[in-house]
Amino acid sequence: MFDKLNEECGVFGIYTNKPGHHVVEQTYLALYALQHRGQESCGIAVCDDGLIHYHRDLGLVPDVFSRETLEKLGGGNMAVGHVRYSTTGTKSRSNAQPLVVRHMKGAMALAHNGNLTNAAELRESLEMDGAIFHSTNDTEVISYIITKARIRTDSIESAVEEAMKQIMGAYSLVIMSPTKLIAARDPHGFRPLCIGELDGDIIFASESCALDSLGATFIRDIEPGEIVVADKDGVRSITTHCGGPSAFCVFEFIYFARPDSVISGASVHTARQRAGAFLALEHPVQADVVVGIPDSGIDAALGFARQTGIPYGIGFIKNRYIGRTFIQPTQSERERSVRIKLNAIQATVKNKRVALIDDSIVRGTTMVQTVNLIREAGAREVHLRFACPPFVNPCYFGTDIDSRENLIACRMTTDEMRDYFGVDSLGFLSVASVTKIAEGARCDFCTGCFTGQYPVDEPKAVKKNRFEYKISESIESMA
Amino acid sequence: MFDKLNEECGVFGIYTNKPGHHVVEQTYLALYALQHRGQESCGIAVCDDGLIHYHRDLGLVPDVFSRETLEKLGGGNMAVGHVRYSTTGTKSRSNAQPLVVRHMKGAMALAHNGNLTNAAELRESLEMDGAIFHSTNDTEVISYIITKARIRTDSIESAVEEAMKQIMGAYSLVIMSPTKLIAARDPHGFRPLCIGELDGDIIFASESCALDSLGATFIRDIEPGEIVVADKDGVRSITTHCGGPSAFCVFEFIYFARPDSVISGASVHTARQRAGAFLALEHPVQADVVVGIPDSGIDAALGFARQTGIPYGIGFIKNRYIGRTFIQPTQSERERSVRIKLNAIQATVKNKRVALIDDSIVRGTTMVQTVNLIREAGAREVHLRFACPPFVNPCYFGTDIDSRENLIACRMTTDEMRDYFGVDSLGFLSVASVTKIAEGARCDFCTGCFTGQYPVDEPKAVKKNRFEYKISESIESMA
Amino acid sequence: MFDKLNEECGVFGIYTNKPGHHVVEQTYLALYALQHRGQESCGIAVCDDGLIHYHRDLGLVPDVFSRETLEKLGGGNMAVGHVRYSTTGTKSRSNAQPLVVRHMKGAMALAHNGNLTNAAELRESLEMDGAIFHSTNDTEVISYIITKARIRTDSIESAVEEAMKQIMGAYSLVIMSPTKLIAARDPHGFRPLCIGELDGDIIFASESCALDSLGATFIRDIEPGEIVVADKDGVRSITTHCGGPSAFCVFEFIYFARPDSVISGASVHTARQRAGAFLALEHPVQADVVVGIPDSGIDAALGFARQTGIPYGIGFIKNRYIGRTFIQPTQSERERSVRIKLNAIQATVKNKRVALIDDSIVRGTTMVQTVNLIREAGAREVHLRFACPPFVNPCYFGTDIDSRENLIACRMTTDEMRDYFGVDSLGFLSVASVTKIAEGARCDFCTGCFTGQYPVDEPKAVKKNRFEYKISESIESMA
Amino acid sequence: MFDKLNEECGVFGIYTNKPGHHVVEQTYLALYALQHRGQESCGIAVCDDGLIHYHRDLGLVPDVFSRETLEKLGGGNMAVGHVRYSTTGTKSRSNAQPLVVRHMKGAMALAHNGNLTNAAELRESLEMDGAIFHSTNDTEVISYIITKARIRTDSIESAVEEAMKQIMGAYSLVIMSPTKLIAARDPHGFRPLCIGELDGDIIFASESCALDSLGATFIRDIEPGEIVVADKDGVRSITTHCGGPSAFCVFEFIYFARPDSVISGASVHTARQRAGAFLALEHPVQADVVVGIPDSGIDAALGFARQTGIPYGIGFIKNRYIGRTFIQPTQSERERSVRIKLNAIQATVKNKRVALIDDSIVRGTTMVQTVNLIREAGAREVHLRFACPPFVNPCYFGTDIDSRENLIACRMTTDEMRDYFGVDSLGFLSVASVTKIAEGARCDFCTGCFTGQYPVDEPKAVKKNRFEYKISESIESMA
Repeated sequence: MFDKLNEECGVFGIYTNKPGHHVVEQTYLALYALQHRGQESCGIAVCDDGLIHYHRDLGLVPDVFSRETLEKLGGGNMAVGHVRYSTTGTKSRSNAQPLVVRHMKGAMALAHNGNLTNAAELRESLEMDGAIFHSTNDTEVISYIITKARIRTDSIESAVEEAMKQIMGAYSLVIMSPTKLIAARDPHGFRPLCIGELDGDIIFASESCALDSLGATFIRDIEPGEIVVADKDGVRSITTHCGGPSAFCVFEFIYFARPDSVISGASVHTARQRAGAFLALEHPVQADVVVGIPDSGIDAALGFARQTGIPYGIGFIKNRYIGRTFIQPTQSERERSVRIKLNAIQATVKNKRVALIDDSIVRGTTMVQTVNLIREAGAREVHLRFACPPFVNPCYFGTDIDSRENLIACRMTTDEMRDYFGVDSLGFLSVASVTKIAEGARCDFCTGCFTGQYPVDEPKAVKKNRFEYKISESIESMA
Repeated sequence: MFDKLNEECGVFGIYTNKPGHHVVEQTYLALYALQHRGQESCGIAVCDDGLIHYHRDLGLVPDVFSRETLEKLGGGNMAVGHVRYSTTGTKSRSNAQPLVVRHMKGAMALAHNGNLTNAAELRESLEMDGAIFHSTNDTEVISYIITKARIRTDSIESAVEEAMKQIMGAYSLVIMSPTKLIAARDPHGFRPLCIGELDGDIIFASESCALDSLGATFIRDIEPGEIVVADKDGVRSITTHCGGPSAFCVFEFIYFARPDSVISGASVHTARQRAGAFLALEHPVQADVVVGIPDSGIDAALGFARQTGIPYGIGFIKNRYIGRTFIQPTQSERERSVRIKLNAIQATVKNKRVALIDDSIVRGTTMVQTVNLIREAGAREVHLRFACPPFVNPCYFGTDIDSRENLIACRMTTDEMRDYFGVDSLGFLSVASVTKIAEGARCDFCTGCFTGQYPVDEPKAVKKNRFEYKISESIESMA
Repeated sequence: MFDKLNEECGVFGIYTNKPGHHVVEQTYLALYALQHRGQESCGIAVCDDGLIHYHRDLGLVPDVFSRETLEKLGGGNMAVGHVRYSTTGTKSRSNAQPLVVRHMKGAMALAHNGNLTNAAELRESLEMDGAIFHSTNDTEVISYIITKARIRTDSIESAVEEAMKQIMGAYSLVIMSPTKLIAARDPHGFRPLCIGELDGDIIFASESCALDSLGATFIRDIEPGEIVVADKDGVRSITTHCGGPSAFCVFEFIYFARPDSVISGASVHTARQRAGAFLALEHPVQADVVVGIPDSGIDAALGFARQTGIPYGIGFIKNRYIGRTFIQPTQSERERSVRIKLNAIQATVKNKRVALIDDSIVRGTTMVQTVNLIREAGAREVHLRFACPPFVNPCYFGTDIDSRENLIACRMTTDEMRDYFGVDSLGFLSVASVTKIAEGARCDFCTGCFTGQYPVDEPKAVKKNRFEYKISESIESMA
Repeated sequence: MFDKLNEECGVFGIYTNKPGHHVVEQTYLALYALQHRGQESCGIAVCDDGLIHYHRDLGLVPDVFSRETLEKLGGGNMAVGHVRYSTTGTKSRSNAQPLVVRHMKGAMALAHNGNLTNAAELRESLEMDGAIFHSTNDTEVISYIITKARIRTDSIESAVEEAMKQIMGAYSLVIMSPTKLIAARDPHGFRPLCIGELDGDIIFASESCALDSLGATFIRDIEPGEIVVADKDGVRSITTHCGGPSAFCVFEFIYFARPDSVISGASVHTARQRAGAFLALEHPVQADVVVGIPDSGIDAALGFARQTGIPYGIGFIKNRYIGRTFIQPTQSERERSVRIKLNAIQATVKNKRVALIDDSIVRGTTMVQTVNLIREAGAREVHLRFACPPFVNPCYFGTDIDSRENLIACRMTTDEMRDYFGVDSLGFLSVASVTKIAEGARCDFCTGCFTGQYPVDEPKAVKKNRFEYKISESIESMA
């Protein structure tokens, strides 16, 4: 709806020694808590004594799962869940996850968050060997690599360990074999993945908020490069790929993760407040009220207000009923479209100098209208501040950052943006500060989208492998 | 989802001298802005050169209106819209509005917000004369009374004027005849109704936020007792029922209306902040952070924080994806249900003394769990404050206040509630203060639900006529 | 799909002294057996100890009733069902039946098959007295008339008796009051209505095939003018309106009724075979094979073949999967449309002289293409025969015969039709014969559509009252 | 609904040199004509300048394809369509066809009718080499084999030719590569496949009735073992696998194919009439009327009547509105279930000796009730005749014949069946006669289900490979 980046996916897994329908229920509930990480499709696979059942489709969790569907899924001793927003591969039912495949040793379900940088090369090599693909997503490549490795190894976890030597880039994986539930995180740890416990059951989840929503106990983050195996013998860890430098996506702290999550020891909410505070230090302003653009600018606005002592105010109402099926009237302009979703509160901004805070800006398509709302409501001055640096580079690790020509910060200077938005001043948080927002975080950060410096090699030849597979990809374009 | 009162309805109408599809589009957009006033059913009726087309059904605006449906409705020179939450009459497709009826002089569409106090008597009298009813809602009674009056009068507006002598209670009405659009408000002005203008078109709406969402200009509130007629000759007012004492529902300011609306000259958002400030004065507290329960407690919390100087904090995340189709897991207790919808932010409350603010409490069904969330997140003390007085009486004017036995404040003292909720202290805003929150409002208030003092006579015999018509009502119980 | 007349409605009612869910189930099953009488909307109302619940909507029985809906309806001691094809009143959810209304004495559900000839006058008179209407169908007029009569009488059956003095035209009614189930048939008996018994329960149904489908026993037809009352005291009959000349719609025997029904003592299937035999006598032909156009021409074709001794053959396959949601390809002509629904069987017709039999023809829109199919399949000669006379007049009694300009027999002579259809000869059954097809039937017939001689006065002024209420009717045009 | 065997699938393909949306439209229309061959799922894939788009889902053609879906599919120069009833692989969205896969040389769509006898071995061998499978159907195995062959060959048609050396059993295939449309039929020609032409476009279809429905011209059957390639250079044939003994499924003539189809030079309708005639010769009867059980017994009944000279009668009405969503009332017995779908016509059978004809019997679950209907309607004697021999063996070539224990003819002798059904006499057509019904057919027949003599080796170890892949299969069990 608004001008935001999209995260690729959220993953979840649960292993119990007391099999039942509750593994499906817990997964269903957890997917609600992870829905912000992907709204395009979702799915659940459950393993009942070695047999895997699954259901997945395009849509939000409540669209895809009815009471009847959940009941049909039955119960078991393991389940895997996934929510997805597509980056590689177009919107398609056949890209929905968990991916479930049969192979020599039985069956396997995979849920993946991230993006490989060498998927194109791997795919080409597999195809030269006679492989066929049903989808364009990286997860099918990963499942092939693991399957091939499985022939040469004596366990699924060894196959995953082998596969990790070949796949490059970002991946937080949850894998379900007929008897084991496995979580694995790439050696840089680009995407979050943590482990929790509830009544003796082991849980893997993209974010700790999913644990909270179930009343589970957070145990720890899975380490970059770590493989964790849960089976009837308990939980064990394989750390052969651990120990390298980490590169956690800083934008998880800025926007993607839910504010109530704690990642790598740092509170997301606190990080966003600190981003606001740093922003106030770097770009101070004389204002009467600090207003955040809902929902993502609210935390930083509060931090900005506290740092400056300027009163924090509620300057906008966001209409919670405008959803996917909202019908854009034919004869209306974009301007009206923002107005129907957002309204300024006159009482907060009238005759005031307003410090207007948002977390980030991507294409810059709706900001002019948002500023206009607050001007019409009587704001005397508008000082716009973003709690992250300008995006100027693509991301190869699991977000949908556009080609450079669509990024407003690639097309305009800060002064040009200020004039274009019609604000009195404009400021972005510095790269130096953005890496400090996650107070106490036990990780280093990837800031490639701001700096162009990436922790691993960029994909060869084509920037995103979706362009390389033109013929294949278009197959997927029907829902 | 949470423990809140429900407003009955929202109404909307538009009259243009440049007929087209835009009257339907504007109504559709406005219903989104009024959706908070009723989520059970909605509808639009449009008048095209004297012919009325309509569509209405159970469901939210996006459920009921597809692009195809909107196109089929066509265009015209007038349209009426309605969103409904049922109080009188059970949930039923046949209670959806606008009500469209044929009578001697053609056809008529009615959209009604409110509740009559003499509907039962009127209905009985009409039935003795051979009337048949298709629904249990008051709107059908009103349409009969107007139709009967129309036989004796020479215009629809005179018929409305006549009818207003007979119907008692709360009503904000928008009526569409083949040639005129009429708005009428009961003499006490229980429910809001305002008039606006957009490119020469005349608009009637329950709240000014609907005008804002269209980019329309707010003109003024319709006066208690006033009838406003829009037709090809322009707009005119009939004021024969005006001039008595007003009794605007104070709970519109506390909870029902959207914060960005301005009613009777007072900002709703400001009123809620003021409620928080008065609350702080009446029930001060030693605390480290002020936290509002989202969404309705946020405004008051900010007012409480400003008044006391205690920092305002964001203490909860509300899951925006939990909707009507959320499936309550069978084996989970109520406790989990709150947890999936709401999560406390540890970083905000851990080791803190928390002033916890909500706007109101009705049955008290989820508060224990909400307090529990914040306790688990590490709050050292929890001081609960409500920005309105305790509900101890039914409402006869358009809200769904339960019979007394379901109201927690009828069953427990404040001290008992404090212990039941598990909080360290508890306070309610006083009745004296609640009538002062709407600064500058040009109206008096109905506070019957707090005081038992009603501005008009209570319904005779039965409290709500739904109990009187047992046979009839049950007819409606199927969707 | 094909060029056929449409029947207005089917009605059903059941009364039991052993209340339960089975009354709803039986009604549901019976509506399947009556579905051929109306495919536009359907509904069921059930009475549980005086309380009426109902569900109705646009669509076929399986579209409208799910397991959940049937369960929600619950059980009771009476139920009424209805299937509808609209003649008066446009397609609209608010025209779906049973109509359920509240009035002075409680509630009432009505299911109606037929068409009043004085509905416009009655409606106008009621409106002058302040009545409001929600729909354009005659059933609402009937319910008003009965309600008014109820005030002056001491029982619902007396009110029906009174009402029958005022309403003119065709009606087979099933009426459910809080305690009684009543069936009534107009004095001419235009439409069928019979009574059956199953395990002590009393059943009213439009056709005996509905009784068979339940395994019920057929008792007798309800007499023209008769009122039958079922209540806790048993079944009784009111015959004050009986005894006049009857005028059963002969087209029920020709096309509307299901072949397995028995009406007025005559088998429908046999009547159609006899029609074919009379047709062979009146329009003999030298042919090698007799082929019926499915499904309605099959019975007559068999009769024709038996009478002539020419072999009966299966000349067409009808595609059973072409339903309401079939999408007519944009670039295809009407010709293809018939081809996809019907295919000729070469083996039956190749090099043969074919006697091609259909029951009737209305607009003549698809016959050219049907003949073309059989020509392409190699038929040497095609001799077309219709088992009823040409339609040249409107029907005022419950079918949707078009205005004359749309009836092909009003625009062309038999010779012109023969040339237009491209057949070698053409013949229609005579009016004299058509009244003899129902062997042993204890009734006279209405043949107004063929002769223009109607048993009751035609409606005044306008031919069909739908044209009189232009303003009102268009209200209904939205689903 | 009734006790019938199910055919596996229907396939369709079209190649044009004038690309456009019409290839999708024609495929859509043709699937209606082939719907009787599979009602569980369907799909269309279209190739637009090398890019393949597709849509497929569970459901009938009108359920799966809306106007919007068809439009989204766009146009192209080739399209492939499929209707499916599952035999191998459970009901599952992921088993819907056409299967679309990407491989080394681009993409490929496959539509398959038949059943491999060595699928299990092929699958195992592929898996040992690292293959992963998304489904349990044979089509995915075939696509792997072709893909592997494609690496070693220089064209897709050569790859198909190679693959045909490895795959054993029954297959009629339509394959679409980015530039070619290929049809292939197994060397025994178990399942039908023909070629037609329409305005220069080349069409492949399971049955000729699909050609008729489009107005296309039938050219010829594709020969057993033949590969036909259509591309920009025209149509050519590869016949290296041709010339062996054929073994066409005789049950296609008895029940599966549509009566208006012509297969291998023989009319299906005529074959069924002949079956009835042979039946009359083998099992003559003294009767007054010959009645077929609709729809499948009608043709044979007519043949029986003609042979014997006993009058043919219409003895049953089948309710056309009972579909998939019919809700079986909870408290009703099976007996009622037949009654609601079928009703006997008293006028035809009362006091008559009835020769009752059906095409076949499988489990024998509804025959008792069907006989009961005709007894209740007054039949004096009932002589039951089946127009094919008793089923006593499984089918490995694409039908869903049950394991032997479910086949009534495996459990009872003819005399026992006669008594169980409650008929006066009972007869089955002989195997000797059944192979003579398709007059003039240029093929030999597979009669394995009657004789146990199969034209190719039975699958090893397990009878049907679905039992071998227990783990895999259950993955598919969710829709």
